[in-house]
Amino acid sequence: MQFQLLTIVGVGLIGGSIGLAAKQRGVARRVRGLGRQRSSLDRALSVGAIDEAHLDPQAAITGADLVVFCTPVDQIVEQVLNFAKHCEPTTLLTDAGSTKAAIVEAVESTLPANGPQFVGSHPLAGSEKRGPEFADARLFEQRWTVVTSTPRTSAAALDRVAGFWSALGSKVKTMSPADHDRALALTSHLPHLLAAALAGALPPDLHELTATGFRDTTRIAAGDPRLWTAIFAQNRTPVLEALGRLEGRLHEFRQALESGNNAAVDQFLAQAKEVRDALGN
Amino acid sequence: MQFQLLTIVGVGLIGGSIGLAAKQRGVARRVRGLGRQRSSLDRALSVGAIDEAHLDPQAAITGADLVVFCTPVDQIVEQVLNFAKHCEPTTLLTDAGSTKAAIVEAVESTLPANGPQFVGSHPLAGSEKRGPEFADARLFEQRWTVVTSTPRTSAAALDRVAGFWSALGSKVKTMSPADHDRALALTSHLPHLLAAALAGALPPDLHELTATGFRDTTRIAAGDPRLWTAIFAQNRTPVLEALGRLEGRLHEFRQALESGNNAAVDQFLAQAKEVRDALGN
Repeated sequence: MQFQLLTIVGVGLIGGSIGLAAKQRGVARRVRGLGRQRSSLDRALSVGAIDEAHLDPQAAITGADLVVFCTPVDQIVEQVLNFAKHCEPTTLLTDAGSTKAAIVEAVESTLPANGPQFVGSHPLAGSEKRGPEFADARLFEQRWTVVTSTPRTSAAALDRVAGFWSALGSKVKTMSPADHDRALALTSHLPHLLAAALAGALPPDLHELTATGFRDTTRIAAGDPRLWTAIFAQNRTPVLEALGRLEGRLHEFRQALESGNNAAVDQFLAQAKEVRDALGN
Repeated sequence: MQFQLLTIVGVGLIGGSIGLAAKQRGVARRVRGLGRQRSSLDRALSVGAIDEAHLDPQAAITGADLVVFCTPVDQIVEQVLNFAKHCEPTTLLTDAGSTKAAIVEAVESTLPANGPQFVGSHPLAGSEKRGPEFADARLFEQRWTVVTSTPRTSAAALDRVAGFWSALGSKVKTMSPADHDRALALTSHLPHLLAAALAGALPPDLHELTATGFRDTTRIAAGDPRLWTAIFAQNRTPVLEALGRLEGRLHEFRQALESGNNAAVDQFLAQAKEVRDALGN
């Protein structure tokens, strides 16, 4: 049992999955959920993701040895800084946000060095679905979680947070917040942008002429626009760089197709297939 | 029993699925497969997709009342025109190619009016997988098949071809070849291009930081490059128009993100989500 009392702030699909996994794997003796809506907390209780439901931050946080913030990326900084005031200095704080530099920099520059320690985390798992009813105790198994390290990060805190994700079944990788954000701009934020651009470009009269290819390619465009607007806003520069990289490739394809250069089109597709085949299903 | 003898030219995933469905649903009394590789034909025989395997076109075609060409789009015209010489005037010819205008125009302008009739078809079903071992008797159920109509198309032939796809379980829609190609450029060819551009833009060191979103969005990039090079070449102008439409949306997103216009980013994502939600899984 690594933790006596785990508090999850925001018990949706990710927070609920953390609670389920922590309970089933014996990672935390007791799991508290903090939320803003009674109905969502009740669903988290009913699927067994949490032992206690709280609407009051102070009651949820008091006595916790680990607090995980699973709220939208534009709420994490304010919550961490507010809630840290109610914590023991030994309480460990981490998050599950899809962006890291904006969050980690804002938290580290404000949180006092002698109080609770914060380590940024991002489990690369999830779904376009929302809510604790989709929680899955195995969500993190065989997936990567990035934990972030900066010159201010406590090595002991980093170890404990990494150990937490490992105990949930995840593989763990340590990166700087900026490296994380540049990587995820390409592997997650750009795919979301493309899926949305493609879905949004579909005229209504063509809906019925879509097949599995269109549906796969646009599936993540069903994600929550508000959550993703916050992610794009927090990771603006890396996303724009990733978009530029993609626009360059589209331009290359356009030139090949316009000029009837089938060898270049084939080469473009063959290189992509090689990458995709290497990823597996 | 609509047909006594069905010949399938090219027994891969699509051709094999046609054979399986035609046999299981009693649409054809006997199914012949014509291929270029003994090994592929043997696999088609072993999964029960065909009753007879042929390497010789004339032997495969003789006596058939329906011939379906399931070969790459850049081979269909030549095969239809060659094989038509071996057919009775009453033999019906159709195909399963992803492009229609180039094929239908070339065939109709050359095939004599008093010989076998050709009607273009495109079942909107498939997979990035290849080979008769992936054939599925239910591949066409609840999916659309487009059959094409032009001023030269025989109404009786169109009806019989539409009836064939219906009998395989498909919903059938009649369109002009040009309308089909413009629609599919947006619903199929552009998604393939984007999946390939995205997969190809992934640096090797970031492979392990991809999650389900990246994998879904790029899945179809595993398709056969040679097949897709031929599709893009045959549908060049509609694909370039579809690409232009997408580039316009990416430019719109870029402007919104660069200027920090979160409301516009949110609107972009919300409109896309509305379309994607309407498509279902």
